[in-house]
Formats: sequence, C-alpha cells, structure tokens
Amino acid sequence: MLIVKKFGGSSVANKERILNVAARCAEDYKRGIQVVVVLSAMGDTTDRLINLAHDINPNAPKREMDMLLATGEQTSVALMAMAFHGMGIPAISLNAFQVVMHTTSTYSNARFKRIDSERITHELDSGKIVIVTGFQGVNKRDDVTTLGRGGSDTTAVALAAALRADACEIYTDVEGVYTADPRVVEGARKIKEITYDEMLELATLGAKVLHNRSVELAKKYGVALVVRSSMNKASGTTVKEVTQVEGMLVSGVAVDKNTARIAIMGVKNEPGIAFKVFDVLAKGNINVDMILQSIGRDGTKDISFTVDKEDAKEAVALLKDNQARLTIESIKEEKNVAKLSVVGAGMQTNAGVAAKMFEALYDVGVNIRMIATSEIRITVLIDLEDVDIAMRAVHNKFIDD
Amino acid sequence: MLIVKKFGGSSVANKERILNVAARCAEDYKRGIQVVVVLSAMGDTTDRLINLAHDINPNAPKREMDMLLATGEQTSVALMAMAFHGMGIPAISLNAFQVVMHTTSTYSNARFKRIDSERITHELDSGKIVIVTGFQGVNKRDDVTTLGRGGSDTTAVALAAALRADACEIYTDVEGVYTADPRVVEGARKIKEITYDEMLELATLGAKVLHNRSVELAKKYGVALVVRSSMNKASGTTVKEVTQVEGMLVSGVAVDKNTARIAIMGVKNEPGIAFKVFDVLAKGNINVDMILQSIGRDGTKDISFTVDKEDAKEAVALLKDNQARLTIESIKEEKNVAKLSVVGAGMQTNAGVAAKMFEALYDVGVNIRMIATSEIRITVLIDLEDVDIAMRAVHNKFIDD
Repeated sequence: MLIVKKFGGSSVANKERILNVAARCAEDYKRGIQVVVVLSAMGDTTDRLINLAHDINPNAPKREMDMLLATGEQTSVALMAMAFHGMGIPAISLNAFQVVMHTTSTYSNARFKRIDSERITHELDSGKIVIVTGFQGVNKRDDVTTLGRGGSDTTAVALAAALRADACEIYTDVEGVYTADPRVVEGARKIKEITYDEMLELATLGAKVLHNRSVELAKKYGVALVVRSSMNKASGTTVKEVTQVEGMLVSGVAVDKNTARIAIMGVKNEPGIAFKVFDVLAKGNINVDMILQSIGRDGTKDISFTVDKEDAKEAVALLKDNQARLTIESIKEEKNVAKLSVVGAGMQTNAGVAAKMFEALYDVGVNIRMIATSEIRITVLIDLEDVDIAMRAVHNKFIDD
Repeated sequence: MLIVKKFGGSSVANKERILNVAARCAEDYKRGIQVVVVLSAMGDTTDRLINLAHDINPNAPKREMDMLLATGEQTSVALMAMAFHGMGIPAISLNAFQVVMHTTSTYSNARFKRIDSERITHELDSGKIVIVTGFQGVNKRDDVTTLGRGGSDTTAVALAAALRADACEIYTDVEGVYTADPRVVEGARKIKEITYDEMLELATLGAKVLHNRSVELAKKYGVALVVRSSMNKASGTTVKEVTQVEGMLVSGVAVDKNTARIAIMGVKNEPGIAFKVFDVLAKGNINVDMILQSIGRDGTKDISFTVDKEDAKEAVALLKDNQARLTIESIKEEKNVAKLSVVGAGMQTNAGVAAKMFEALYDVGVNIRMIATSEIRITVLIDLEDVDIAMRAVHNKFIDD
C-alpha cells in the first residue's frame, strides 16, 4: 500500500510541528505502508521571500521569483528528512530536479507535463520514506518553475497518479471540507463525501481547502483524495467520483474575495471585438472568469468581467496598451467585490435553485452584480461588504433548512 | 574579456549590499566585459540553517544538510538577478543543477569533477550577466553536495578555469592578503603579489581570505586570482605563478585557531600501527595535519596529531571504537591550541628561518608544542592563549624588521 500525504506550510511552521508531522507519518510507515510526503514551505516563508524580492525589485522577473521561492520547499523537505532520521526511520528528501517533476515553461503558473517515478520508487523500495518538495517543477531548459499558490496540493495528486498510490491525503488546519466557512456561518457542517465535480467548483470558487488543479488532476486520474486535519485524527472529507446521496440539493456555499471586476465601455458593436479583448488578456496569461456583455445607449457595447485581484493591474494595463485598436472608450476597475457560489451535484436534476438563491439574497437586501452558472453551480458577484450576510442567508436557505 | 567575480556572504547580507554588488559588476558589464558572478549565502544564513537543523536533529545526515544549506546560495543568486533586472541589465541565476557543476559524492566536503560550460556560455553570449550559486554541486545520483565552508571561492576558480576566464576576482571585506592579521598585528601590510604556493600555505593555515582548494585549483589551471575589497576600489592582492621579489624572506604570518590536538598513548611499538591509526581516520574522512611520534618510557609509542576542531569528537570516537585493535592505552584531546605559521617562497634558498622564528618565540616566552615544515613554510603548534603575542613577535622579526 502506498499513500501520498501532503502537509501545508502551517503544518511545518516550526520544529514541534515538523516533529508532529514526522510522528504521524511514522505510524503508517510502521504499519508497512509506503509513504511519500509532499511539503510546502514553512509558515510564512513564501511571503517573506516575496517581500525580500519586491524590496529589491518590485517587478522581479518571474523566472527569478520561481528560483527564489523554490528554496522554501527545499528547506522543508531537508528538515523533515532530518526529523525522520532522528526517529530512526530512513528517509530521503527530493526536490523537483531529483524526482524529476517536468512542467511547462510558464513561470509562476506552470503545469505538470510528466513525472518520472523511477527515483521515488527506488527509494521507497529500499525502505525509505520519500519527502518531495511541493509547488515546484523543472521545465525543458532545466529552469525552476512553480505552480502558483497552493500548488503543493497539485504536486501531491500528480505524484499519487504517477505512483498509482492507493490514496492521496491532504492535511490542512481544518478537519475537512465544510458546507460554508465555519468562521462565518455558525451552522456550517463538515461534508463526509463530495464528488470531484462539486469539489472542483468549490475549489475554483475560493474554498481554500484544495487547489483546483489538484482536484482536476485527481478526477482525471481517479486519485482517491482525502482532506483531513494535521492536528487531530478526525476522518475528514473524501473526494471521489460518485458519493452517497445525502439528500442535499447543495453541497456547499463558497466565497471568493480574491476577485476584481473590470468594465470596458463604449466598445464598437463589431463582430470579433469581444474575441479580440479576451485574446489580449489570454496572451497576457490572465484568467477571465465571469463575463457580462450589454449593449449601451448609443449602440456601443459595455463588457465587464472578473479576474483575480493580483491580475487586475496588468489586465487594465494590457487593455490600455490596446485601447485604440479595441475601440474602448473607457476602462473601470473595481476591487470591492466578491463571488458567492452554491455548488451541488443535485442541482442538475432540480430546477429552481437559482430562484431560491436569489430569493435568499433579496431577503437580506444583497444586490447581485453579475451571474454565472454551470451544471452544478450558481455564482453571483456581490459587493464585498455583503459577503458574510449573504453567505449566512444562502447557507441557511439550502443547508440548514 | 571574461571575468568571474565572487562575493561572500557579508557582501550580499542585505538589500543595500546586493544593489552595491550589482552596481559594481554593472561597471565592467557596460565596458563590454562578460561577467560571471558567484555568490555565497546571505549574511548568517548558513549558520541559521545549521542551527535550525541541529535543533531538529543534532546528528542530521550530511546529505540532508547539503540539501538544506544549498538553499542559501540559491536565494542569493535569484535576488541578485532581480537586482540586475531592476537596473535594466539582462541577467540570469543558475544553480549547480543548471550549470551543471559535477562533484564527487562526499556530502559536505565534495570536490569538483567536471563543470559543463555550455549553459553559461550560451547565456553570456546572449548578453546576460550570469549569476551562479557558490559552494554547491551535484553528484552522479543528482543529489546536492556542498564543498565545505568557504567553498564558494573554489566554485569561482573552477568556473574561471572551465570558462577560460581572463581573471577570477575574489571580493572580501578586507583589501587583500596581509602579512598578518591587521586586527592583531599593527605593522601588518597588504601584499601586492603572492605566489600560488605561498597563498596555498597561508590559506591552508588559516588566513581566511581564500579557501585553500580554490588556490590549488587556480595553480593547477593557471587562473589569475585577485583578492580585493567589495567596499572600495583598492587594487588588492594578485595571486600568480611567479611574483616580483619584494626582498622579503617571509611573505606572511598566519594563525589557525580551528585546530585540536589528539594524543594517543601507550601504542605497541609494532610496524604498521601508525599506518593503521591514520587509516581509521582517513576512512572516517578526517584530515590529519601535524603528526608527532615519540617512544615512551616502556618502549611503547605516543602519537599526537592535529585535526580541525569540528572533527575532534569524531576522531576520538573512531579511535575508541578501534582502541583494542590499535593497541591504544589512552586517548587525550586538547582544544586550547593554535597553529602559527610563517610562509615565504624566499625560504627555499635561505637557511636559518626556523631558528629565527624559534628565537622570536623564545624571546616572548611562548612554548612550542609541535613543529611541521614544508619547503616554503614553518608551522608551530602553540597554546591558544599565546597566539596574539606570538604572531606579533614573529611578524616583527621577519617583516617589520
């Protein structure tokens, strides 16, 4: 039996926590299970490194940022290996070069292309616990890449797939996936089982428990994912293809505050203009989420869309660079917005979910700015200040009811 | 023209110093010189990492120590590349994997076997400043190795040799190589030129300006070495094959406090015993320096020798493990000792240097415990407390006179 276990930065933030993680992994190892441990950088290391870099060069090239940030995970894995040795358990740390974790070339947002399993398999077969750096890879020029925030989840799932592991356990500081953020919604409950699709929608929409690409990858390769606490032994949430129906229309309510709305106004009503706008953004590697297009008074178009907050500045700059060509009259950027979503596989066969959600929001006086839907999700863009009241209202309507 | 420039940890300890180094390198770059920069870890990073490791496991495996420590230089080179980009100068950081810097497998004390020059040459030819991690390499299993303390000097010289650089400049916090430690000996002077052999003796004997392996390598490949200050533009010290005779018998006086004396007593006076003793230590990767053998009262042998302070504990442990086989009656370890050396190419053709040195020490009442000589060096082991007075006396006799 082979299990990949991923621990985030707060789980390895200091000596005591590193020893705690080692002790937990040792239990499975002593039961004869082969263990691969994937780690993030310790505590706030990544933020500290980013600040160091920005202090020297606020526009540091992404290649060098990745070279810098990759040191964080390498520190974690080396220290963890030392912790295992201290307990008398053979262990070895491996970075992305050593594994090798091949990725695309896009710095700070790379994707795995292929993972060589030989070295890890060799070390596992020689009786060692193998500790692998999360978050990072190597591109075809042998340069260091990183996967973007939360990428260690993806590393864990990708390794689980490559090694055909029996399970991939993601350890966090919460006990699993909840129906809503328990810090905001009193009645929020832990979800025992959830489908990949539901989890994917929740992850994409800001439930920070799992990185969305890790869920995509888990679905693609059928990796059994478990989200559980690094602090206690509660059973956590299992993510899999089909779950036992718990009779709930909606599995969870998610909020994403990391979003900004950009509106471009007065665009000529010509074929292909919308394509050109989003092509400019795509070439700048900016992900656009919700899109709303409307015809203005004088026959011109207004297009508004949402992007991640950190991309907003660059998105506006790119649009300004192409303002004439794209026939844009004016550009507006708004950061005090948030996305609120309800997710549930039950939605597919049940009409009226949207109406029920809008009713809940109307009841508490929350204004809806934009709407987007998928088969198992409804997302609305609302004002940032309305987030908590909106989340409680919607959770109450669908889950607590 | 191609110059390799090496900056130590204190030269890159913070943002201001990093920008200062970048500005200095930029001057040569703008003159059309191809520049390769080799960096150590920032400030006290290496010590901090060692403490972190020892806190988790006081006997951390060396492989994992190297994996951990290598993050220090990677941080420096990435930040330096960002500094160059901020000045509008194209630059790229490379770690040992990327170069590739092939080494032997001995963790924490590896030696270079081969350096691939393709990647660096390619980046230089595309107009970039190339910044390389000092101190580290990769062994045949793709594991990270380190060269031991001060190894970044060796990295710089090895790169200069591999790239056939026109010069290798070692930047330090002093202005060059001095006839003695200027903090202790008032009359100490900067040496303008010194031979490889003299520098090698000085380096080996604790003048911390250059790592001894770097000097060996420079001599082997005829790399023109210059030691100069990172703080000012003074011309520094040039190390080369033949120097202009400055009419001095002795070029410098060096002190090495990082030494311990181990004495083994009552060893059977049998052929091969000394060999067996030093074979045990060699297999434990412990370097033995001065050796003194004497016949004790009862026909047994006493053997004493010096090792680096950090190796003393392991040396004693190894000897104890083999105590019966090596017929050792008792083992004594002494740490309050230091080596004092005079070095000078002029010595080879001039008798009486030893006598003159012993006279200087006798005059100030310093007791000599052991003596070792080479063609251009005389070293004595003395009590640690006598070091300053002895250095001043010897410097006065040979250089200030």
